[in-house]
Amino acid sequence: MKIAVAGLGLIGGSIALTLRKNGFADYFYGIEENAEHAKRALELGIVDEVVTLEEGVKSSDLVIIAVPVDATVKLVISSLDYTDRQIIMDVGSTKASVANAVKNHPKRRRFVATHPIWGTEFSGPDAAREGEMTGRLTVICDPENSDPDALKLVEDLYNSLGMNTVHQDSGSHDLHAAYVSHISHLTSFALALAVLDKEKEEEQIFRLAGAGFQSTVRLAKSNPDTWVPIFKDNRSNILDVLNDQIFFLRQMKKLIEMEEYETLHKLLSDANAIKKIIK
Amino acid sequence: MKIAVAGLGLIGGSIALTLRKNGFADYFYGIEENAEHAKRALELGIVDEVVTLEEGVKSSDLVIIAVPVDATVKLVISSLDYTDRQIIMDVGSTKASVANAVKNHPKRRRFVATHPIWGTEFSGPDAAREGEMTGRLTVICDPENSDPDALKLVEDLYNSLGMNTVHQDSGSHDLHAAYVSHISHLTSFALALAVLDKEKEEEQIFRLAGAGFQSTVRLAKSNPDTWVPIFKDNRSNILDVLNDQIFFLRQMKKLIEMEEYETLHKLLSDANAIKKIIK
Repeated sequence: MKIAVAGLGLIGGSIALTLRKNGFADYFYGIEENAEHAKRALELGIVDEVVTLEEGVKSSDLVIIAVPVDATVKLVISSLDYTDRQIIMDVGSTKASVANAVKNHPKRRRFVATHPIWGTEFSGPDAAREGEMTGRLTVICDPENSDPDALKLVEDLYNSLGMNTVHQDSGSHDLHAAYVSHISHLTSFALALAVLDKEKEEEQIFRLAGAGFQSTVRLAKSNPDTWVPIFKDNRSNILDVLNDQIFFLRQMKKLIEMEEYETLHKLLSDANAIKKIIK
Repeated sequence: MKIAVAGLGLIGGSIALTLRKNGFADYFYGIEENAEHAKRALELGIVDEVVTLEEGVKSSDLVIIAVPVDATVKLVISSLDYTDRQIIMDVGSTKASVANAVKNHPKRRRFVATHPIWGTEFSGPDAAREGEMTGRLTVICDPENSDPDALKLVEDLYNSLGMNTVHQDSGSHDLHAAYVSHISHLTSFALALAVLDKEKEEEQIFRLAGAGFQSTVRLAKSNPDTWVPIFKDNRSNILDVLNDQIFFLRQMKKLIEMEEYETLHKLLSDANAIKKIIK
């Protein structure tokens, strides 16, 4: 099988490297506007050849759109314009806008909307890793709007990466993703800003930072080019969850100000219920 | 050497298990009010015998106070009351209140105030782990107020755990700890509350939660019995950093509301500076 990957960064690169290793496909076309990334992706063996989107679509069986979400809609539409039999999939972290954009496209059924729930705080082709998505989950959105053969190929692809797939409608996906992924990034960015603002002497941070701080601040290293488009695209859900997060922080602040420590204890005990969910 | 450990939980238990294994001490007295914890600590081989504080101090060379910070002052003072030559150390996450409480004690110089920067979100004797503190840092506060032999023994102890030590005054420790440890716990608790509040269907959280969410919410499993006393004891620094955290979250919210995405991009790029500090 031949696969075209548009966007040779963390996600596109990791998928390509793994599919080459496991034999799911044997030739990879890359589509990449950033010349430096294109060069590195060739050097790293992520793709065999860098081509235009049109060449990529027409020469492949499957096209994977793995660019920031603000560029996804345009590339998915263009790919569908070029396709006859080829299957197009995206891997973006938000799904409602692309679902909406392709809704009336005559080739809509050749498209499969997916979100593999995996990532790191790093980006670009050098961040790509082979085999690391194993054991994680992929959400496939609105599967009833895709052709059965397209859906099957995409599910086979994810299974070959060692991932399970679940189905969800795109609106519901975006709501839940705001709560269990996007807000984590915003709180981590805010934490980094608060600490950087205070700790002018970087040595102090380095000395006293424990594993807890490192795990909560890790996401603040993430690329704004990836995340600003996600926050923009999922704006209304993001504003809801930001409101909730600010509400609970203000509640804690008020309880500490008023020295109402029993109520604070009760609130933190309620938060402990997350134990039942996250092992 | 004989050591008495008051508080047979995560920290006291982990230190005792490691010091037994590495031969730093060969007999461990436990002081523990919780009968169930005392029983488990004996079963797990954390201590050889459970005794009163007075018996523990009088029979030992070194006493380690490893209880929640609201109980630390009382136990440190009582231990100093009983001591003649014995060395007393604490391992609490806040240091100013204990420093202040012992200031005029006639045996002050037998006391060493320490904060080993290690922990997990679990608590109690079953959470104790041997050898896991290796490579982490311990802060020793106000070392000029301790006898040289007391200071040396405590530094030798931490070195035997594979930890390096740094010196800091207790006020400065508490300020920095608020920024690089305590606030991480508050934001994590708030994140858990926001998500639990929204996601009544727990299955959804489980399905969509990625590694990013797991790492930012992990600390919300922490024991309120440990953390409420820390927030209480370090109240004014905690309120400052909570204000900063809320300020930055509100700023992000405002930028998303106003759709000022370029300014948001700039802000998140500023947060990326944490890369230079946290590897």
